[in-house]
Parts: sequence; structure tokens; C-alpha cells
Amino acid sequence: MEHKDHMLLAIKEAEAAAAIGEVPIGCVIVDANGSVVASAHNLIEASKDATAHAELLAIKEAQEKLGRRLTNCTLYVTLEPCPMCAGAILLSRISTVVFGARDWERGALLSNSNLANTWTGGKVEVLEGFCSSECETLLKDFFSSRR
Amino acid sequence: MEHKDHMLLAIKEAEAAAAIGEVPIGCVIVDANGSVVASAHNLIEASKDATAHAELLAIKEAQEKLGRRLTNCTLYVTLEPCPMCAGAILLSRISTVVFGARDWERGALLSNSNLANTWTGGKVEVLEGFCSSECETLLKDFFSSRR
Repeated sequence: MEHKDHMLLAIKEAEAAAAIGEVPIGCVIVDANGSVVASAHNLIEASKDATAHAELLAIKEAQEKLGRRLTNCTLYVTLEPCPMCAGAILLSRISTVVFGARDWERGALLSNSNLANTWTGGKVEVLEGFCSSECETLLKDFFSSRR
Repeated sequence: MEHKDHMLLAIKEAEAAAAIGEVPIGCVIVDANGSVVASAHNLIEASKDATAHAELLAIKEAQEKLGRRLTNCTLYVTLEPCPMCAGAILLSRISTVVFGARDWERGALLSNSNLANTWTGGKVEVLEGFCSSECETLLKDFFSSRR
């Protein structure tokens, strides 16, 4: 499977979030063989936990499944990670992040800041632009329907 | 109770971490009345989860207990928070952070970066210097005993 195919799985997660009234952000983590080891979507409302972002939930699930740090794994997420999630990505040693839409306000891998640049003892490859318009549209539609 | 008394509780958590082979970092969250609503220590090794930092665990516990965001709560932690935990602090709307030792490599509230400065729509008061030498000594002793 290609980056785009995995991003489509992350979009499916984002859609599942929207269906239960959560901000539509989805995440999938894939190992070196291309097997999906974790997938999650935002659960902030359902869990009443402001830290229940898709990436953090998927990282926990992947670590539990693999029983190790996430070296050689790729994380796909529909929106650029915030500082909390970018920190979790670096701590868990994810090798590559592929994200869809930019987060100009809080994006911590390219847009608002680049956490990977100031992080000692770790690095992560960051790729953007996969299905970005679909990811953006999901978010826009969600917020406009709630107004 | 004063800031120092709550920091001593966080230090007790850090000591509990050291006793089970975890990096000695402890955290306590206190509400506006000075009641402790959550306390936690690092559980990275025990849970095989690189994100199981004391602050993140305490924030989850406090949100679960109070059923809301953590406005008007103060978080005490023995070491300056990393970017992941600083992000979680801002997302959960902790009002005040009191930390012990500086983290010159990864501290994300003063030392390596100041996440609160670039965060839109939230702010946090940051106080340092409470029991900082005790907190530092705990970490130094832990790492020197493992060499």
C-alpha cells in the first residue's frame, strides 16, 4: 500500500469521529511491512479528556501491540500534529509522519513550530500533502455544521 | 498548604518511581481549594509506554475525577515539563504550573522553549525554584546508581 492508501484509512477514522460528534481527526500507524498496527480517532468529548487526540491514542495502542518503541513505524494523521502529539511522536520514536491538512495555529512539525528541530536525541521524517484537501474539507464541514 | 508542601508530595511520587526503577519524576494536581485531585509518577518502563510521563498520567486522572478541564488547578512537577506534557497542560487548561528542577534539554515552559508563548487561546502561569535542588539530586542519584 502507498502513503495515500494509508491516509485514506486515517480519513475513515476521522469520519468515524465526526459521526459521534468528535472533531474529525484520524490516525493510523503502520509498521515497516506496511501492516496497520493501530488506528484511532479523536475521543476528546466521549472520554472528557482533552489529551485524547487521535495520535496519542494510536501511539499507546501501537506500543502495547508491539511491546516496544515505534522505530521504523509510520504515523498517518489527517491534521498536522499539535505540540503534545509531536512530543509523543518523538518520545515513541516514530520514524516517519505523513499528515494531511496543515494546522497553521498549532501545527508543531512545520506550521507553527518545528519540534523535531529542537529535540535532542531523536528525529522524524515529515511528509505532507497527502489527501490534504479531503482532510481539510472534513474539518470545515464539521465546524460549519455545528454553527 | 503552600507551594513547597505540594512539591514535597510530588517528590514523594518521584521517590516511589525510583523505588521501582522508573526515572524519578513525580506530579501532583491540586484544585482551587488546595485539595489534591491527582498524583502520579513516571511509568514508562512498567507500562512500556514512552508517553507515560507523570504529568500526562496526573492530568488524565484529574480530568476523570473532576469531569471537566483543569481550569483553576495547579500542577506540581519535580522536573520542568517536556513538549508533550506542556502541550497536555495547555490543552487541559491547567492554570498554574510549579516545577522543581530545570530540564535544559527538553524543558518546554522555560528552558529549551516556551510553548505557552506560541499557544493561541490559552495561557499558563509558570513558577519555578521550589525544592529544585532536591528534585535535581533525586535524578542525579538515580542515573549515577545505574551507571
